[in-house]
Amino acid sequence: MSLLENKLTKLGIKLAEPKPPVANYLGTKLVGDLLFVSARVSELQGVVGEDVSEADAKKAARDTLVLLLAIVKKDLLDLDRIITVVKLQGFIRSGNKFTKQPQVLDGASELLIELLGENGRHARTATGVNQLPYGAAIQLDMILQVK
Amino acid sequence: MSLLENKLTKLGIKLAEPKPPVANYLGTKLVGDLLFVSARVSELQGVVGEDVSEADAKKAARDTLVLLLAIVKKDLLDLDRIITVVKLQGFIRSGNKFTKQPQVLDGASELLIELLGENGRHARTATGVNQLPYGAAIQLDMILQVK
Amino acid sequence: MSLLENKLTKLGIKLAEPKPPVANYLGTKLVGDLLFVSARVSELQGVVGEDVSEADAKKAARDTLVLLLAIVKKDLLDLDRIITVVKLQGFIRSGNKFTKQPQVLDGASELLIELLGENGRHARTATGVNQLPYGAAIQLDMILQVK
Repeated sequence: MSLLENKLTKLGIKLAEPKPPVANYLGTKLVGDLLFVSARVSELQGVVGEDVSEADAKKAARDTLVLLLAIVKKDLLDLDRIITVVKLQGFIRSGNKFTKQPQVLDGASELLIELLGENGRHARTATGVNQLPYGAAIQLDMILQVK
Repeated sequence: MSLLENKLTKLGIKLAEPKPPVANYLGTKLVGDLLFVSARVSELQGVVGEDVSEADAKKAARDTLVLLLAIVKKDLLDLDRIITVVKLQGFIRSGNKFTKQPQVLDGASELLIELLGENGRHARTATGVNQLPYGAAIQLDMILQVK
Repeated sequence: MSLLENKLTKLGIKLAEPKPPVANYLGTKLVGDLLFVSARVSELQGVVGEDVSEADAKKAARDTLVLLLAIVKKDLLDLDRIITVVKLQGFIRSGNKFTKQPQVLDGASELLIELLGENGRHARTATGVNQLPYGAAIQLDMILQVK
């Protein structure tokens, strides 16, 4: 078991077999040493700031990051091939008065740092949108550097 | 004529001379072997799930991808310089109840795969937004690896 | 003082010490020769096309680009390490009838070209969204090639 999966286990997180993409795209695409990870949405549905609280949205961001890691594991076979996290992009389905997208996305960013330390720190964009696939509350994609 | 343009012709698709950017940006920018293609919007205007159907939006996604390919051809001169499609990003102007952004974006993804086979498969993000330039229904940008 | 800062000074622009990120992310992340600059939002708040005019939004896009340059300077130490601007991504908080996102984003693009000439020209995506962090009107991120 990889070092990173050991850390996940200690945090009580188990990577499930990822569901296949719902449409015609790859889970990840490697070009040079950059791995582009396709967006996935949270299981949690709803509009943050209306029917979803900031705290629940933050937890959903963390859970969505776990989905991305399961996809990365499936494609790379070994999560210890991750050198560093380059960029995380998060779309938060937001009510017209909800403005704490950065605090929500911290749910994902903090897990990356717990798992990878300094190499888990990354550039980031946190944006509000009115709608996401399946009515989800959170959508994340990312770029990793891998070996 | 390039192999890829031959395939386009067989699909009945002709690449028109692209319109110049409406504002102060390039159609594409090359860095190393990565070609960043600027976003273009569909000619089709409207809100998907309200005044635009899912089927029409999917066709508009395909048509917008053809616009991007015309820009790539103008800048690269030869479409056969495309090695692989790395990442496709699609913004779908969505009514508050429309949640099938992935199915809409398949209009573009399926054409890439028809044209380029396995090399046309890519990482992807499909997001709903409330508004796009010129009131368009679809906006696409992408990253290609080229030689 | 770097050549680029000299040009900024001649334009009457002073780079302030950037505020630390409000959440758990880096201002920039370098991978190979690509510098991914995290999104920052404008100080100007409001909805473009409703309580913010197109002209004020364009100026806010320019001001937000100055914030990004201040962060890049802090991290690179010398702005003359910028080789070229690869990609600019702008999210414009848009009223449901506002469709001139490209004209607003020109506020940032034009400053990049004033400062860097041909190397300041870039690929771009300008998208409307219903909400941004802190209720800001504009959000920008970018990718630079650096030495």
